Amino acid sequence: MASIVVLAGSPSTTSRTAAVLDLLALRLTGHGHDVRIVSIRELPPGPLLAADTHHPAICDAVAAIAGAHGLIVASPIYKAAYTGLLKAFLDLLPQYALAGKTVLPLVTGGTPAHVLAVDYALRPVLTSMGAHVGQGYFVLDQLINLAPTTGPTLAPTAERPLLSIVDAFSEAVASFRPVTVTV
Amino acid sequence: MASIVVLAGSPSTTSRTAAVLDLLALRLTGHGHDVRIVSIRELPPGPLLAADTHHPAICDAVAAIAGAHGLIVASPIYKAAYTGLLKAFLDLLPQYALAGKTVLPLVTGGTPAHVLAVDYALRPVLTSMGAHVGQGYFVLDQLINLAPTTGPTLAPTAERPLLSIVDAFSEAVASFRPVTVTV
Amino acid sequence: MASIVVLAGSPSTTSRTAAVLDLLALRLTGHGHDVRIVSIRELPPGPLLAADTHHPAICDAVAAIAGAHGLIVASPIYKAAYTGLLKAFLDLLPQYALAGKTVLPLVTGGTPAHVLAVDYALRPVLTSMGAHVGQGYFVLDQLINLAPTTGPTLAPTAERPLLSIVDAFSEAVASFRPVTVTV
Amino acid sequence: MASIVVLAGSPSTTSRTAAVLDLLALRLTGHGHDVRIVSIRELPPGPLLAADTHHPAICDAVAAIAGAHGLIVASPIYKAAYTGLLKAFLDLLPQYALAGKTVLPLVTGGTPAHVLAVDYALRPVLTSMGAHVGQGYFVLDQLINLAPTTGPTLAPTAERPLLSIVDAFSEAVASFRPVTVTV
Repeated sequence: MASIVVLAGSPSTTSRTAAVLDLLALRLTGHGHDVRIVSIRELPPGPLLAADTHHPAICDAVAAIAGAHGLIVASPIYKAAYTGLLKAFLDLLPQYALAGKTVLPLVTGGTPAHVLAVDYALRPVLTSMGAHVGQGYFVLDQLINLAPTTGPTLAPTAERPLLSIVDAFSEAVASFRPVTVTV
Repeated sequence: MASIVVLAGSPSTTSRTAAVLDLLALRLTGHGHDVRIVSIRELPPGPLLAADTHHPAICDAVAAIAGAHGLIVASPIYKAAYTGLLKAFLDLLPQYALAGKTVLPLVTGGTPAHVLAVDYALRPVLTSMGAHVGQGYFVLDQLINLAPTTGPTLAPTAERPLLSIVDAFSEAVASFRPVTVTV
Repeated sequence: MASIVVLAGSPSTTSRTAAVLDLLALRLTGHGHDVRIVSIRELPPGPLLAADTHHPAICDAVAAIAGAHGLIVASPIYKAAYTGLLKAFLDLLPQYALAGKTVLPLVTGGTPAHVLAVDYALRPVLTSMGAHVGQGYFVLDQLINLAPTTGPTLAPTAERPLLSIVDAFSEAVASFRPVTVTV
Repeated sequence: MASIVVLAGSPSTTSRTAAVLDLLALRLTGHGHDVRIVSIRELPPGPLLAADTHHPAICDAVAAIAGAHGLIVASPIYKAAYTGLLKAFLDLLPQYALAGKTVLPLVTGGTPAHVLAVDYALRPVLTSMGAHVGQGYFVLDQLINLAPTTGPTLAPTAERPLLSIVDAFSEAVASFRPVTVTV
């Protein structure tokens, strides 16, 4: 059993990214992990943008990251990259805040034309923070059914590979033993 | 004479990026341009992150971008890319908000190891917004002297090429005639 | 009237990239430009990979680039980026071989998932060589009809925007006046 | 004990990249691995660029990759990215040739300004091929002493972290158990 943070980087109140994350958090909890969703858009905007890590809510979110063995880092694609909201939170973390942690990058977008943003935009940022970044995944918006009353669902063509990747991530987090690099 | 917006993406109150921008704004004003500095960190954080373009201050900044012929888009490098603060502002603009506009990307960083972030991180975002992105520039932090009382200065090794690039940008903005592409 | 090189980076003998380039070369010739297609796969492989710029065929290709006012640089997308064949040729050119030249990056691919490779992979390389890189374009393979007997054609949904972009490139090459930057 | 391929992507006959790789191959052999250096520049140029996987030398190199548990993929930085020589070889491999394999990206360059090319250029290509890409490393040319007679050495500031990373890679290859993803 590991401690996992699901970091939600969508600024939208009716976010498809958030809907997918709820499903994945449930799956990871089912695998016995201790899962916490950190929704960046619910953090106080002023302290977030000013990188005020003394503010209790920011301090608590930073501590959650520090204590996690693994993270799902999720964002919709805006303007060919991750959201500014997600990056603003990553910016206030220490440079190597993700060292020794296994990270699954998860991105949603309205067109397959955004797919490469996972590897060309999000992954380099996570790698620069010391993360052990495994396989990422891109979910097409139209495969996410928000279904406000009955709860969100994924189309089978997205659900099968995504659950498979999350299960692999679950195993990787459980077994990952970071190796200290002497500099 | 053209209308130029200098978009400042540093969250820091004692920003070296901002210091360089003051120098460049002065230079562009000297060339007869109408220059306005938009400091993103002075916009209201809540409306900024919620993309509330009805808020007067946000609305005013968006209008400034819409009315500009050219922009300097500036950011320090955090975590191998532009700041979340800058991206949050770009995220609330329309997808093609920079179409027909000449853009000079300007980046500051503490080590030359950040140089490629101009072309691999910032430029693709600006290009996705339709901008005509010219030559960019990277200024090493240590070449920027903040000099709080007498005003900021640049070391000659940074000042000469930067002013030369800004002068080229000035000419490019003045002469640029966007060509409409039929889709 | 300007001198334009169309640089073909596909290793395939039945290349869709090459088919599109033939159409564009015709269009540019129609605009009064002096157009030359440099097909990298027809250069001698040994001297190409050894960067032997004394070999007559390599020397001639390098001179064509040096003499061009503008270039279309074209490649299919393999493994999320431009081809090794194209990069091998760019590698043997001087670092600033494209300074003062207007460049149109053109990429073909089998799925829209490759679109961002234009801006995240090809453009940074061209920019590092001093090129003035304008708007790029991605053509989906299935919109290119090779039609070996009657000659290649493009589906209207690709042909209209592409010709429009090439016409804009034609004007940009004709009017571009590089500004010398003092370093 | 694992089977490891060291893939050398420098076209130079007096390559600093190759010198570093000799040191690393020795280290990995010392850890009990079966190490093979594949020097791309020694493959026949014509068949390489034509992706002729029936040519015996090409076929043999492809088989070496297929049989490896882990790879060091190494390149100098030319024009802000990996070499065309390296990419030409990767281009002729199957799309998922690196699936289930642990990869250490290793890059050399003349200035720290090239550092980010590891994560923004090389890593996305390796990831697109299914590789499990761990921490990468950049070695500054001037820290590599070619010493033609006594054999190459690394300056201590480069040797310590690099050997540490290679040791971590050695452990990761030995322990990595790829997880099959159902699509």
